Amino acid sequence: MKIALAQLDYHIGNFEGNLEKMLAAVEQARALGADLMCFGELSVCGYPPRDFLEFDDFIRRCQASVEALQQVSHGIGIVVGAPSRNPEVEGKDLHNSAWFLHDGQVLGVQHKTLLPTYDIFDENRYFEPATEFHVIPFRGKKIALSVCEDIWNVGNENPLYTICPLDEMMGEQPDFILNISASPFDYTHAALRIHTVRANVERYKIPMFYTNNVGAQTDIIFDGGSIVMSPDGQVFDEMPYFEECVRVYDLAEVQRGGRSAEQPKEKIKLIHDALVVGIRDYFRKLGFKKAILGLSGGIDSAVTAVLAAGALGRENVRVLLLPSQYSSGHSVDDARDLAEKLGIQYDIVPIRPIFESFEGALKPFFEGLPFNVTEENIQARIRGTLLMALSNKFGHILLNTTNKSEMAVGYGTLYGDLCGGLSVLGDVYKTEVYELAAYLNTLPLGINQSTGVIPRNSIEKPPSAELRPGQKDTDSLPPYEILDPLLFQYIEHRQGPRELVAMGFDEALVARVLRMVNMNEFKREQAAPVLRVSSKGFGMGRRMPIVGKYLG
Amino acid sequence: MKIALAQLDYHIGNFEGNLEKMLAAVEQARALGADLMCFGELSVCGYPPRDFLEFDDFIRRCQASVEALQQVSHGIGIVVGAPSRNPEVEGKDLHNSAWFLHDGQVLGVQHKTLLPTYDIFDENRYFEPATEFHVIPFRGKKIALSVCEDIWNVGNENPLYTICPLDEMMGEQPDFILNISASPFDYTHAALRIHTVRANVERYKIPMFYTNNVGAQTDIIFDGGSIVMSPDGQVFDEMPYFEECVRVYDLAEVQRGGRSAEQPKEKIKLIHDALVVGIRDYFRKLGFKKAILGLSGGIDSAVTAVLAAGALGRENVRVLLLPSQYSSGHSVDDARDLAEKLGIQYDIVPIRPIFESFEGALKPFFEGLPFNVTEENIQARIRGTLLMALSNKFGHILLNTTNKSEMAVGYGTLYGDLCGGLSVLGDVYKTEVYELAAYLNTLPLGINQSTGVIPRNSIEKPPSAELRPGQKDTDSLPPYEILDPLLFQYIEHRQGPRELVAMGFDEALVARVLRMVNMNEFKREQAAPVLRVSSKGFGMGRRMPIVGKYLG
Repeated sequence: MKIALAQLDYHIGNFEGNLEKMLAAVEQARALGADLMCFGELSVCGYPPRDFLEFDDFIRRCQASVEALQQVSHGIGIVVGAPSRNPEVEGKDLHNSAWFLHDGQVLGVQHKTLLPTYDIFDENRYFEPATEFHVIPFRGKKIALSVCEDIWNVGNENPLYTICPLDEMMGEQPDFILNISASPFDYTHAALRIHTVRANVERYKIPMFYTNNVGAQTDIIFDGGSIVMSPDGQVFDEMPYFEECVRVYDLAEVQRGGRSAEQPKEKIKLIHDALVVGIRDYFRKLGFKKAILGLSGGIDSAVTAVLAAGALGRENVRVLLLPSQYSSGHSVDDARDLAEKLGIQYDIVPIRPIFESFEGALKPFFEGLPFNVTEENIQARIRGTLLMALSNKFGHILLNTTNKSEMAVGYGTLYGDLCGGLSVLGDVYKTEVYELAAYLNTLPLGINQSTGVIPRNSIEKPPSAELRPGQKDTDSLPPYEILDPLLFQYIEHRQGPRELVAMGFDEALVARVLRMVNMNEFKREQAAPVLRVSSKGFGMGRRMPIVGKYLG
Repeated sequence: MKIALAQLDYHIGNFEGNLEKMLAAVEQARALGADLMCFGELSVCGYPPRDFLEFDDFIRRCQASVEALQQVSHGIGIVVGAPSRNPEVEGKDLHNSAWFLHDGQVLGVQHKTLLPTYDIFDENRYFEPATEFHVIPFRGKKIALSVCEDIWNVGNENPLYTICPLDEMMGEQPDFILNISASPFDYTHAALRIHTVRANVERYKIPMFYTNNVGAQTDIIFDGGSIVMSPDGQVFDEMPYFEECVRVYDLAEVQRGGRSAEQPKEKIKLIHDALVVGIRDYFRKLGFKKAILGLSGGIDSAVTAVLAAGALGRENVRVLLLPSQYSSGHSVDDARDLAEKLGIQYDIVPIRPIFESFEGALKPFFEGLPFNVTEENIQARIRGTLLMALSNKFGHILLNTTNKSEMAVGYGTLYGDLCGGLSVLGDVYKTEVYELAAYLNTLPLGINQSTGVIPRNSIEKPPSAELRPGQKDTDSLPPYEILDPLLFQYIEHRQGPRELVAMGFDEALVARVLRMVNMNEFKREQAAPVLRVSSKGFGMGRRMPIVGKYLG
C-alpha cells in the first residue's frame, strides 16, 4: 500500500483556496500511484478557525469541501480534517474529525478525543470529544485513524488527560497509525513531536504516519515536519520544515524500517525560518505586499528589516529613519549603513519640528515641570504617527520591532514604538535577537550577495531607546544577560518567586522584574499579534488579568 | 438553620484584601446568628484568575486563605470557593472547588463538574471536572453543594453538557441546594439566572441558595443579584445588583416560601449601573483616581464623560477639547456646554499647528496626492498623543469613547481615537448610546443637581467624526438604525449571511457589513479592554482569526 502525506499551508476560511490546493494534491498523489492521500487537521477550513466555528454557515462550507473531496475519491482513499456536527442534543454541537473518503463514499469518521485547551488552544470551547473508537478497514489493512492530540497522552510524566484513545483501538489490531495534525511551531516542538510519535510506536509496535500543516495563521506558525516512523522507532522520513510538501511512502518499506532521516534542529535557524514564514504569510494572506518600519540604528529594527527583506523581497521593504534631538549621530549612520547594504528604500525625517509643536501645545500644562517619560513617549508616538501615515497613504503594513524582553517588562510606548500590524520579535528575547543578528550576518542577504548586512556597531553598542540624553536600557533595566534567563523561567516555565530565588536569582530583582511584567499587562493587551516561536509567547497563549494584584 | 450569603467584590490575586473582606463578613454573619456563611466561586483569589492558576505559588496562596478561614470556622460553617489540587497524576492539575469548613476542619470539598469553556470562560484550560458527588451533612441537614455552572445544564433546549451533577446527589436526599457562583453581568443575564435557579428548584423540589460575586475585573462585570428561592419556585430574595451585600436567611422561612422579591430589570439602567461599576473598579483596583478623555461635542464622549463623573466624582474627570480645522463651530460649544454643566475641568487645545508640522514633515512624500483617510488618521493620532501626554504627566487613565457599532465596523483610528486604557462604550451600540444619553439626562448629575447635562445638540445632530469638511458617519456607513440590528444578529446571535438575508436585511448590505466587521479584527486585537454588558462583547469572549478570509 502506498500512502501519501500532504503538508499544506491552509488559509483560515478560504474554502476555495484550500480546496483547490487539496484537489491538486489528490491528483498528484493519484499520479504517483498512492492508495491513500492524507491531509492535516481541520484542513478544509484552516487551523485555528476560532469562533468562526460558531457560525452554521461556516460549518456548511466545511461540509461542502468534504463533499467535493468525496467526489474525487474514486480509486483513492482521502483522509481530511473537518468539523462535523454532533447528532446528540447534549454536549457541544461539533466534533473535530478525520473523515475517511473512498470511491465517493464516507468510509469512516473518527472524532478527536483529547481536545487541547491550554496555551494557544481552545478546543473544548467548540468540540465534544469522541466516545467511539474503531479502526478503518481499507484495501486489506486496518488503519488506526487519529487526530493530533490523541497521540499526545503517551510518554508524559504528568499526562493531561485520563485516557489514551489509541489504546481503545488496539483490540482491533490495526496495521498502522495515521495521525492528522495541526501542531504549531516553537523551537522545542519538532523534537517533542518525534519523541511523542516514538512513544506511540513503541507502545503499539506498528508504524505511524503523521501529517502536519505548514504556514502561518497570524501569530501561530505551523512548521510541517510531517513524520513517518517505522516500528523500529526510527524516523523513516521527516518532511521539510516551513515548506509545503507531498510525498508518497510504501507501507512495506516503512514496515521494514532501518532508515533514519531526521532533520537537524538548530534553534536560531528554526526561529529565523519561522519568522520569515510568519511575515510572508501574514502579508500574503491579508493581500498586502509592502512593509514599512522605523530603523533606529539599534539591533531590533535592524534584524526586523533584514527578516522582512528576506520574507517580502528588498523591493517591498521601506524604512524611515526618524532621529530626534536625543538620537546619537551614529544611530542615523548605522541605520543608513544597514539600509544601503540591504538595498532597501530609506528616508530620513527628523522629528524635532513636530516635537516642538507638541511642546508648544502642551506648554500651558507642562510649564515648569521636569522632562520625564511623558516627553519620551511623545517622541515615540510622533514616530508611530509618521510611520502609520506612510503606511496608510501607500498601503504598507507597519512592522513592529519590539523584542520579547521589552514586551515583558513594558519597556516601550503604547501607540508609539508598540505600533504595528505584526510583532516580528515579540517572542524573541533580546539576547536571542543578538544570536539572530549573528546568524543573519552569515547569510548572503546584502546587495551583491554580501554577508554581514547588520552593522557591527548596531550589534556592539549598548542598547538604548535614545529618548533622553545619554539614555541606556540598563538605566532602568537589569542587564539582558540577567533579565532574560529570569523572564524565561517566569514566562516559559511558570516559576514563581520562591522557585526563582531558589535558582539563585536575587530576591529583590525577582520582585522587581515580576512586578514589571505583571503591571504591564495593559500594554501587551493592546500590542500587535506576536509571531510565536517559543513554547510561551505573548498573546492567546498567555492569558493574564489586567487588574490583578498578584506580584504586581 | 440560618444561612448567610455574602456577595463581595473580590480583586484578582489580592489575597490579603479578599481575605480581610471575608473575615469581616464571617464575623458579621456570626453576630447575626448564622449557622453557615457562603462566599462565591474562587472567592479567595477572585474570578477569573486566568493563567495565574498555572503558578504553584498562586495555588499555595489560595490554600493559605482557605486555611485562614478554616481557623475562624469554630461554631460556624464557611463555604468558600478556591482551586484545589488534583491528587491524580492524570488530568489537569487543579479542580475548581467549593470548600466546606467547620470547627477548624474541612467538612467536605465539592469540585465543579461542568467547566464553562465558551465566550469569556476558559475553565477546561485549568480544571479537571468532578467525578464524585456527595451531599454534606451539617447540623442535621444535608446540603447539595455545587459550583456555578453545575446548575446550568437544566432547563435548556440544547444543553452544553452530557450530565447534570445535582442529579447524582439526589439519591442522598439533600434538604437544600447551595450554589456558589461567579456569574458575570450582561443585560440579559439576571433574568436567565432566575430562570435557571427555578428550573433546578422545580426539578429537585428543594430550596436553593445561590451566591454570586459582584464588582468588575477589568472587562468582566459581576452584578451580584444573589438568589434565594423557595420550593414554590418564587424568588424569596434577590440581593441588589452591583453592590456588596451580606444577608442571613432562615431556612424554615425559605422553605415555607410565599414571598416574591424579584427586582426590576431595566436594560438601560442595568447597563448604566454596570458601566459605572466597571469604571470605578478598574481605577480602584489599579490604584488610579483620575480619568481624562477627549470631548468632541458628540454623543459618545459626552456619555463617557458623564459616566466617568458618576463613577469617579466630577473632581476626578478632566477633558480636553481638541478641535481641528475641520471641527464645526458648535462642536466646541457643545463640549464646553457639557463640561460646564457637569462641572468637570476642561481645556481647549487646537490641533491645527501640530497637524501642520506633520504636513510639513510629510510634504516630500505626499506632495500632489489627495487628502484622504491618512490625513484623517493623523488628526486622530495627534489627539491621542495629546491626551496620553497629559495622562502620562499627571497620572490619569485615558478613557476610550468608541462605541460598539464603530468597533464592529472599524470606524476609528488605531492609535488615535482607539487609544485608552479602558473602553467604556465598546459593548454599547450607537443606538443604545442614545438611549443611555436619554437616561442620563433624567438623572440629577449636573452641578446643583440639575438634570439634562448632555446638550440637546450633541444628541440631535447627525453623527460625524469631523475629520474632513462636512463629513457624516452615513457617508461611509449605513444609518445606525439599520446597521445596529444587523450587527446585533451577526455578533450576538452568530447569524450568517443566509440567515440575515432571510430576516430581511439587504443582501449587498449584509455582505458589505460582514466584510467590514471581519476585515477589522486587526483593530479590535489592539483595542482597549471593553466593559462587557451584552451577551457577546469584543475581547476574550469573541475570538476571531485576523488573517481569516471568511466573509472578508
